[in-house]
Amino acid sequence: MKINVYTVGGYNEVGKNMTVVELSEDAFIFDCGLYLPPVVELENKEHMDEKLLREIDALPNDLFLDKLGLRSKVKAIAVSHAHLDHVGSLPFLAYRYDAPILATPFTAEVLKSLIRDITDEKAKIRARKNKIISIMPNSSYSINAKKIHEVEFIHVTHSTLQTAIIALHTDEGIIMYANDFKLDNTPTLGKKPNYERLKKLAKQGIKALIVESLYAADERKTPSERIAYDLLEDVMLGTSNENSAIVVTTFSSHIARLNSIVKIANKLGRTPILFGRSLKRYTTAAKKINMLPFDAPTLSFKTEIQRGFKKVAKNKTDYVVICTGHQGEQGSILDRLSKGQFKFKLSKDDHVIFSSRTIPSPINIANRQQLEKRLKEAGVRIFTDVHISGHAGREDLRDFIRMLNPEHIIPAHGELQKRTALAELASELGYSLGYNIHLTENGKLVMIN
Amino acid sequence: MKINVYTVGGYNEVGKNMTVVELSEDAFIFDCGLYLPPVVELENKEHMDEKLLREIDALPNDLFLDKLGLRSKVKAIAVSHAHLDHVGSLPFLAYRYDAPILATPFTAEVLKSLIRDITDEKAKIRARKNKIISIMPNSSYSINAKKIHEVEFIHVTHSTLQTAIIALHTDEGIIMYANDFKLDNTPTLGKKPNYERLKKLAKQGIKALIVESLYAADERKTPSERIAYDLLEDVMLGTSNENSAIVVTTFSSHIARLNSIVKIANKLGRTPILFGRSLKRYTTAAKKINMLPFDAPTLSFKTEIQRGFKKVAKNKTDYVVICTGHQGEQGSILDRLSKGQFKFKLSKDDHVIFSSRTIPSPINIANRQQLEKRLKEAGVRIFTDVHISGHAGREDLRDFIRMLNPEHIIPAHGELQKRTALAELASELGYSLGYNIHLTENGKLVMIN
Amino acid sequence: MKINVYTVGGYNEVGKNMTVVELSEDAFIFDCGLYLPPVVELENKEHMDEKLLREIDALPNDLFLDKLGLRSKVKAIAVSHAHLDHVGSLPFLAYRYDAPILATPFTAEVLKSLIRDITDEKAKIRARKNKIISIMPNSSYSINAKKIHEVEFIHVTHSTLQTAIIALHTDEGIIMYANDFKLDNTPTLGKKPNYERLKKLAKQGIKALIVESLYAADERKTPSERIAYDLLEDVMLGTSNENSAIVVTTFSSHIARLNSIVKIANKLGRTPILFGRSLKRYTTAAKKINMLPFDAPTLSFKTEIQRGFKKVAKNKTDYVVICTGHQGEQGSILDRLSKGQFKFKLSKDDHVIFSSRTIPSPINIANRQQLEKRLKEAGVRIFTDVHISGHAGREDLRDFIRMLNPEHIIPAHGELQKRTALAELASELGYSLGYNIHLTENGKLVMIN
Amino acid sequence: MKINVYTVGGYNEVGKNMTVVELSEDAFIFDCGLYLPPVVELENKEHMDEKLLREIDALPNDLFLDKLGLRSKVKAIAVSHAHLDHVGSLPFLAYRYDAPILATPFTAEVLKSLIRDITDEKAKIRARKNKIISIMPNSSYSINAKKIHEVEFIHVTHSTLQTAIIALHTDEGIIMYANDFKLDNTPTLGKKPNYERLKKLAKQGIKALIVESLYAADERKTPSERIAYDLLEDVMLGTSNENSAIVVTTFSSHIARLNSIVKIANKLGRTPILFGRSLKRYTTAAKKINMLPFDAPTLSFKTEIQRGFKKVAKNKTDYVVICTGHQGEQGSILDRLSKGQFKFKLSKDDHVIFSSRTIPSPINIANRQQLEKRLKEAGVRIFTDVHISGHAGREDLRDFIRMLNPEHIIPAHGELQKRTALAELASELGYSLGYNIHLTENGKLVMIN
Repeated sequence: MKINVYTVGGYNEVGKNMTVVELSEDAFIFDCGLYLPPVVELENKEHMDEKLLREIDALPNDLFLDKLGLRSKVKAIAVSHAHLDHVGSLPFLAYRYDAPILATPFTAEVLKSLIRDITDEKAKIRARKNKIISIMPNSSYSINAKKIHEVEFIHVTHSTLQTAIIALHTDEGIIMYANDFKLDNTPTLGKKPNYERLKKLAKQGIKALIVESLYAADERKTPSERIAYDLLEDVMLGTSNENSAIVVTTFSSHIARLNSIVKIANKLGRTPILFGRSLKRYTTAAKKINMLPFDAPTLSFKTEIQRGFKKVAKNKTDYVVICTGHQGEQGSILDRLSKGQFKFKLSKDDHVIFSSRTIPSPINIANRQQLEKRLKEAGVRIFTDVHISGHAGREDLRDFIRMLNPEHIIPAHGELQKRTALAELASELGYSLGYNIHLTENGKLVMIN
Repeated sequence: MKINVYTVGGYNEVGKNMTVVELSEDAFIFDCGLYLPPVVELENKEHMDEKLLREIDALPNDLFLDKLGLRSKVKAIAVSHAHLDHVGSLPFLAYRYDAPILATPFTAEVLKSLIRDITDEKAKIRARKNKIISIMPNSSYSINAKKIHEVEFIHVTHSTLQTAIIALHTDEGIIMYANDFKLDNTPTLGKKPNYERLKKLAKQGIKALIVESLYAADERKTPSERIAYDLLEDVMLGTSNENSAIVVTTFSSHIARLNSIVKIANKLGRTPILFGRSLKRYTTAAKKINMLPFDAPTLSFKTEIQRGFKKVAKNKTDYVVICTGHQGEQGSILDRLSKGQFKFKLSKDDHVIFSSRTIPSPINIANRQQLEKRLKEAGVRIFTDVHISGHAGREDLRDFIRMLNPEHIIPAHGELQKRTALAELASELGYSLGYNIHLTENGKLVMIN
Repeated sequence: MKINVYTVGGYNEVGKNMTVVELSEDAFIFDCGLYLPPVVELENKEHMDEKLLREIDALPNDLFLDKLGLRSKVKAIAVSHAHLDHVGSLPFLAYRYDAPILATPFTAEVLKSLIRDITDEKAKIRARKNKIISIMPNSSYSINAKKIHEVEFIHVTHSTLQTAIIALHTDEGIIMYANDFKLDNTPTLGKKPNYERLKKLAKQGIKALIVESLYAADERKTPSERIAYDLLEDVMLGTSNENSAIVVTTFSSHIARLNSIVKIANKLGRTPILFGRSLKRYTTAAKKINMLPFDAPTLSFKTEIQRGFKKVAKNKTDYVVICTGHQGEQGSILDRLSKGQFKFKLSKDDHVIFSSRTIPSPINIANRQQLEKRLKEAGVRIFTDVHISGHAGREDLRDFIRMLNPEHIIPAHGELQKRTALAELASELGYSLGYNIHLTENGKLVMIN
Repeated sequence: MKINVYTVGGYNEVGKNMTVVELSEDAFIFDCGLYLPPVVELENKEHMDEKLLREIDALPNDLFLDKLGLRSKVKAIAVSHAHLDHVGSLPFLAYRYDAPILATPFTAEVLKSLIRDITDEKAKIRARKNKIISIMPNSSYSINAKKIHEVEFIHVTHSTLQTAIIALHTDEGIIMYANDFKLDNTPTLGKKPNYERLKKLAKQGIKALIVESLYAADERKTPSERIAYDLLEDVMLGTSNENSAIVVTTFSSHIARLNSIVKIANKLGRTPILFGRSLKRYTTAAKKINMLPFDAPTLSFKTEIQRGFKKVAKNKTDYVVICTGHQGEQGSILDRLSKGQFKFKLSKDDHVIFSSRTIPSPINIANRQQLEKRLKEAGVRIFTDVHISGHAGREDLRDFIRMLNPEHIIPAHGELQKRTALAELASELGYSLGYNIHLTENGKLVMIN
């Protein structure tokens, strides 16, 4: 039997990840994410639908699968984690497949919340078509199709909750999907990666590894999230801020990071308040599955946000404002704060801490520069890059590939140049380009024999 | 009375720091360092003397002071810390001044060791001419000259032991020399900066602040040395190294960092051994003043180094090798290790950890690239930038200037472009270029009224 | 007598150039330009007025002059050339001064056209208050004030017509204003700089030189505009374009460059057509003074633009489209072309040639990236940087300063970092920072004794 | 019949190009070059032999061909042009193959000169084993092996004389080897590329194209060599150099560039003199085939160089010194000039013109920085990058691939990242990675069906 891997999306860009694995009679989808830059630039984000999103190239282009007769062979859609570039296209595309969606509980909750937010009623009904099945990390689900196939979710660390490496067990060996992850041995929330299970699977024999390439060129081990905690503490406890407001912005889905900020706010004797719709989405999802490690007000509706900032304005040194806007996104809380659109105005010597890095697309760079310019004009002090990445570096990837010892490697997530760095690493490890390292593009097929 | 500040060295480059403050009848020198790049390129480093070092521009050019009649007015030479770009020219230049050298005990020991290493007997006698007076951090020394002048050494954090900010008390107010430092509130060794004293001096009135500019363009607070400890632990405890040799290289004078490496080596159950002449110099100086926080063999002579590596070769997983060579310096231990010149040879999957950053001069970049190439050819795994700087970032400098509130600011340490960044910061804080911000060059005079 | 030089604008940014020279009883303004980036970001550019432009910091902040009693001392406003960052604030600020505007004929025409475009009638009347006096290059004008002062306009090469270096003759020597220029000995239009006159003035003694710094860090001689012609010919005649539309975009005020493009279009046997309001403005001004070297239709009104593109659509290989939009400006002709808003649509293998470089502000970079992305999606071939700068490089500036041998140098045009590069050059030439090199900021005073 | 392409060297680096094409019973080698960086770093360059060069990885590793039984199948070695990274390994490796070397007359002369320079007599004899056959550009040679195979040399432009694209005619179609070239339609020496023949071959059907990738990421058409002439004239005729020495350094093999410098020297009324061994090698080779377009003394031996500089020292403004050393190579003429090792010393305001760009390896960057530092200390004026590349840019490559329309594309010359850029271009043109775009490595096989 041969295995066909269709690299649908995320092989020409960072975003809209989607990979389809075709066995003799069944097929499986891994991830179905959005490409965010064109979405960010949309002027009106209220009414997104499949047609519009296809036009702006924000969805993985899965239409070629229809011609190949693959659509009807799909038996399950397995989702690795809750980031939009992995889960965000499901509300618009999943209906095309007569297959359940498998995801860890947190990812499942985030997906449901995305579907709830669809404004068009017809589209919402369509988005609800697929059954969503919650799979606990470190457990499996059996698909009863032409054959019985086990889909296994293995716990791994990343920058959001309940991220999984997915193993599809086939007669030919295991297809492993590891997109995205880091190897954090001292996470601040939850356990370290399930190395035991990964090693056991390696012994059984991994046929092919689909693996993220984002930081494959970065010659280092990505430090633990624990270091991000330390950096935050260093800035928040180690600078003169007795008379300053403190505003921190970070990735909304990064529950562990939010927990660190809340903890340090408490150490400072300040009350943390979260502002922003996206923060609400992710903290609510975490709460539903009883995995929100902190208790802090999270304000999302217009009126509650205004009321929240009114409170902050009265005594700004009593609070730590945690808000959206780390990329300078127009309409985010920090963007509007910097434009003076709330009751609370930032002023001289207030602190704004970016617990993030700027994702280097030109639109982000321009947005951030404008945001920082406004902040500086108000005399605000800026602390940038108080952050540690959630993606494996070259030395982590080296350890990872060695541990798994797969027959074939398919570098994923990123344009060719990024994936080439992973190919070079694999080549250092004895793999061979064109033989068992597969560099490909969106809309292409890799045949594994 | 007016105060003249002569910016002798370190105002056109990073290195050879030297500043002279002239009061009505007395004058004082602050620092007298080397410019290292031309020294690094010397083929024969054994016989360095004043003439040669002047020729290659490695010494601050203090000859113009003679014409101004300043030489005889100098009543003391105060040294801020033990780095060569601050202390390294004293063995060659101090004899020209009939004045004692004031330094903290660690700096004094390092200076004595530099003098001991002079090979030419006549030169060594000359270098011993000046009395070296040890001043404890947070204490003062009175110079009984035409007037009585107090020179105060205030404890501050940096990347070596017993670094001081120096305050010269004059009738017109305090001249403060803060070159180099960081503001570390959670140092891994010793106390945090003496903020109380600095604030008290600020109340008395600081006439002029001579302050380092190296990272003034870097929009952040420099993280604590504690983070460097965490990063090291992350790499040394968090990667697969059961069967690997571990080699760590860092700045030889950075006793706190060495202590961290030794501690983590012990956690790993490995024996740390230090290799290299420069490591010997600094650890010996620390031991002499009872401030070496760890106990580990430090090998410096040819034969003991060979014997040490023989031991390592026998069972490499029993040791952590700590050695010189982080800049790829030719002839350093790591350089020679990479060339296979010892009994112990680096091989596949051994780890080399750079707890340092490459100082970006072309010669260093070329050396490091050659070094890494050799290491990679041997299959060695490289971990770079496991490091936190010892210099204040822009936001630290902002806090510092505000805390001190000096009348005049003289940006020091770096070519004009670097110092311009500090001038811009001072301008943000209300100072004015050409009025109370003084951008100047080597060999120039700033008049403070 | 001492001379005061007020550095009003263009000393913290590239843009809004304005310098005031105060003699004992009279004062003179040099340039009065706009800062373009905030104007580019304005959503509605139709109704710009002084209040709005002051709010977004687009005008030189000349209000502090009032407090110093300088406003009434101003006897003339001398303008160096027709670029908006030198002339663009006059329609909004000149009325504040009871003084004529002196400019070369081309600059005068451009200024008049800017005033005609003011929509508010009251504002337009106010903008017409100052008399505009045309001064031929290489001639002088005498101001009959408290004293008689001669203002001399010396021909120099730059990227627009009739650029002048301005010499103000005073009892103390000449104040020379050279902002902006290049030294082009083989210009494609007009003569080379009037070196004879400059040398003669140098002999009379130049008290102070105010000089642009934009490319002072660029270690080269800026090549002649002739090279730009050659590069254009190389791309337009040397690539396969028989079946392709050819679109060229460049700086609208760059009449010599436009002339080159028109010439090469003719060589290709194609008809050049110019599209865009800004192109209309500058070519019309050139025509009025009989200095437009070519004859080509220039379309500016909506309907004529649409009609023009209809014609191009019929037989695209008959034309060369020359249009606005080289920085990706929203609403420019090229921006709208790329969005398919005209009858003529760009398609596979059409050529778009940028005879320009991207001015590296984040908003421009983001705009250009979006523009190029759209063009590439249409399969258009892009040729970038077919361009030579109009600003003097470091080696030109070295020649220039040596030729003039001024007593004092005031680096102008750019933030401190840019001007620092000129200061370093001057220092190489024997000048001394803080003595006769004056680095300052907007809103400051340089006293020349 | 299938065709095997062995990518022996130049697929992991810029240098040591070597590709082997295996047909059913015969095989052909294309190029056999050196990898220069490790050679540059050799301390003693006098005694290079195969063993040493293999050790430092300077030769293409062709040993794996032996195991595959290919060595005896090789029927000819075809060389594209005279650069060392294409021809430089032949003196050490060609003897291993019982096959003639085919090269254009200029390349043949250069090769012979390289062989003459071998010091070891035995090695020299071995190097003389292979017959060298001169093939005129735009002609063919028939190899009478198991089958009769025609090897065709097609004239193309590049940065040295008589560069060829090589077409191997096989039963399955043409294998075309285009490594290196530019598409220059207005060369200053010789004709433009033979487009007619290339188009004709395209019609016959090109099976596979092996093509250089060096500038595939550079989004432009590489300008004509004519522009380099213009830039040189601009610097040499357009700066103040009446009292200055003029030194120009460029690539020794670039006869057209040398011709431009000589011409402009004559325009200046100065006598051009060439200094350096490498210049002697290439000008002599050109002379032998009657293709040296200028007549100027070329000094190569120690004594004649000293005598030459003595003459220059007497009246430096009478000469233009053309010399080796554009990369700052230690021991080159410019290196030694900057160190004051000749009778003629560079001094204040002398001009040094780099008609080259720095090839960005760390060793070159360090060498150049040291060189420029010495020159600046002497007050010399430096003009850099007075140069146009000899390699095709992305838009040239697009035209080229379209014109040839090959079935398969094998990107050559450069590490994977560089070749990836060409793969992306090919993908834009409709080719498909893994199908008919072949990204591979040194020592690998590409099978063409």
